[in-house]
Amino acid sequence: MNDLNQIREIIEQCQPVEGLELEKAKKRIDSLVKPLGSLGGLEKIAMRIAAIQKADQPQVSKRITVVMAADHGIVAEGIACAPQTVTAMQTLNMLKGITGVCVLSDSNGADLEVVDLGVKEDLHEFVGMKNSLINRKISYGSRNFAKAAALECSDVEQALLVGIERVKNAVDSGYHLIGTGEMGIGNTSVSSAVLMAFTGKKADLLVGKGGGITDEAFALKKQVLEQALEFHQIQAKPEYRYDDIIEILAKVGGLDLIGMCGLFLGAAYYQLPVVIDGFISAVAAYVAWLLCPVVKDYVFASHISAEPGYLYVADVMELEPIFHLNMRLGEGSGCPLAFSLIQSACDMMNHMATFEEAMIDATQLVDIR
Amino acid sequence: MNDLNQIREIIEQCQPVEGLELEKAKKRIDSLVKPLGSLGGLEKIAMRIAAIQKADQPQVSKRITVVMAADHGIVAEGIACAPQTVTAMQTLNMLKGITGVCVLSDSNGADLEVVDLGVKEDLHEFVGMKNSLINRKISYGSRNFAKAAALECSDVEQALLVGIERVKNAVDSGYHLIGTGEMGIGNTSVSSAVLMAFTGKKADLLVGKGGGITDEAFALKKQVLEQALEFHQIQAKPEYRYDDIIEILAKVGGLDLIGMCGLFLGAAYYQLPVVIDGFISAVAAYVAWLLCPVVKDYVFASHISAEPGYLYVADVMELEPIFHLNMRLGEGSGCPLAFSLIQSACDMMNHMATFEEAMIDATQLVDIR
Repeated sequence: MNDLNQIREIIEQCQPVEGLELEKAKKRIDSLVKPLGSLGGLEKIAMRIAAIQKADQPQVSKRITVVMAADHGIVAEGIACAPQTVTAMQTLNMLKGITGVCVLSDSNGADLEVVDLGVKEDLHEFVGMKNSLINRKISYGSRNFAKAAALECSDVEQALLVGIERVKNAVDSGYHLIGTGEMGIGNTSVSSAVLMAFTGKKADLLVGKGGGITDEAFALKKQVLEQALEFHQIQAKPEYRYDDIIEILAKVGGLDLIGMCGLFLGAAYYQLPVVIDGFISAVAAYVAWLLCPVVKDYVFASHISAEPGYLYVADVMELEPIFHLNMRLGEGSGCPLAFSLIQSACDMMNHMATFEEAMIDATQLVDIR
Repeated sequence: MNDLNQIREIIEQCQPVEGLELEKAKKRIDSLVKPLGSLGGLEKIAMRIAAIQKADQPQVSKRITVVMAADHGIVAEGIACAPQTVTAMQTLNMLKGITGVCVLSDSNGADLEVVDLGVKEDLHEFVGMKNSLINRKISYGSRNFAKAAALECSDVEQALLVGIERVKNAVDSGYHLIGTGEMGIGNTSVSSAVLMAFTGKKADLLVGKGGGITDEAFALKKQVLEQALEFHQIQAKPEYRYDDIIEILAKVGGLDLIGMCGLFLGAAYYQLPVVIDGFISAVAAYVAWLLCPVVKDYVFASHISAEPGYLYVADVMELEPIFHLNMRLGEGSGCPLAFSLIQSACDMMNHMATFEEAMIDATQLVDIR
């Protein structure tokens, strides 16, 4: 996949989920021995997975979270919760299998792969690695977007293609479900800048404390982001063309965010259900949705992140997050939790008895929907 | 356990969870390689389970949902979503393993037992039964509380003792975690009446459509409940003594609800973490909490039920439900979903690396809590 025009072609070829498939799945779920609609969100999830898979018996037993790792020049402004070296260190710890998303993946029967798109240090495979390292390094981190464009437009397109490629690989490997994670100190700032750029909303509305910063650093972070958007003379528009989007991502984006955006595009193209983790993941889904509205049909929200920008994206994309746990770790940590819940939803659809099998006369029950 | 005074003794002997144990667990969680507090609700859950178990490595791998089944005379008023015979039919279907809570238990590695406290029909064990039937029938259903007291006070105490006994049995069988389910057509009305009685709040505020009823039946349900409370001359009090509580439960309670209330008391007494399902389960937890405030230390809320009365209980008991799925099936269906999430929380505490193990200098990270 070397031709960059391929991204436009991929976007054009994405298909919405078929209404007929949704209806078929709903009919099956409505035949099960329970008051109509009484399993709420579980029913919606099962219906959507079945429709995406065009399957009477949806399967989600094989699942993987793909973690995009990259560094960000913006950390030079002193607005992150940890030193930049933590990106490489935690990426290695992910390969060892000892960070939050790793443990939660084990706990929920899910795999993990880590893609190096732009970590500042060179990473090498080592003996005893538990998870795969995919080397797709585009650069050794982005430039400080307070003072220059973070990336070249060609970097942006390359990172999108890596995301799409990882979805193809997941489909070829038999995965039913994919999660979206990241590792990159400073990437909450990057995601906030991207969201401010596309929406025209102010930092006060969208920006939170990320992994954790002091009140002083928080005030500074908002100021730095406002000034950066001014510096790049970014004006929100009512609609965005492909080139506008690539340009904004080059100005204030980051390689991990853009790689995740590619995962969402790839999921829509290869018709694979894809799980949103927290804020950064949600912004990646939002940008993918601007590029290709059909993306929305394939996304499943895991949890309400503690970042205010998340709520904005959840609102405009009409996401329905499953968990309310006030999590703000990132890494993709919400995805394995959602995998188990989605599994339960599919099991419900596949294994509950019908009214007929349970010998209950459904005509005597009342439909309130 | 034949002496009814035993309930008062049990209540008096319940111990709160120790603050020192909570602190010890928090210290361990804070040493793990993530920004402080960034796993939010997962951290709280792991901390509480570890403190209840007084364990460095909390375990929840063996878990069971106990379903209390009973019939309710109030269905004669025409306010339920299904014919009364559905109670016995669905109880049998639970023994077969084909209803919602059964499938979700399988999906989440959990067991199920069904306790007959007051089903109108005689139930018998049969070849090919998947789940255990525990025969503790107290009566063949309650009286219609629109016209008479639903139960004798001795029935109430017997049902509480059955709940406590089932927790003892669970502990003796090595279970780490217990869920609370029910089957009983009309039990949303019963639970609403109980909640109205204790809180003095009106039907408009607390009553919902249960499994599903028409608008006409909904209006009737609220009217019937208001009139029943008037008929029994129940006045809410600022505080309730043991005898008051037993009396109210005898007037407008139901055996399934009261059996679940016994499960919550038993959980506090035997120090076993216990999961709240939906509205009926939450009302049972609320009454157990009135009987014994320490109960609160042992309860974990699974999901926000669609019933308005649930929100009232969640608010006064300061519950923090994990899932937002708009479920209203009952049966205990939220419990197995919560079991997996609680398992993930414990795995996080037991298996994530510490900062030291991950070679990250925690003093360079910022604490925002």
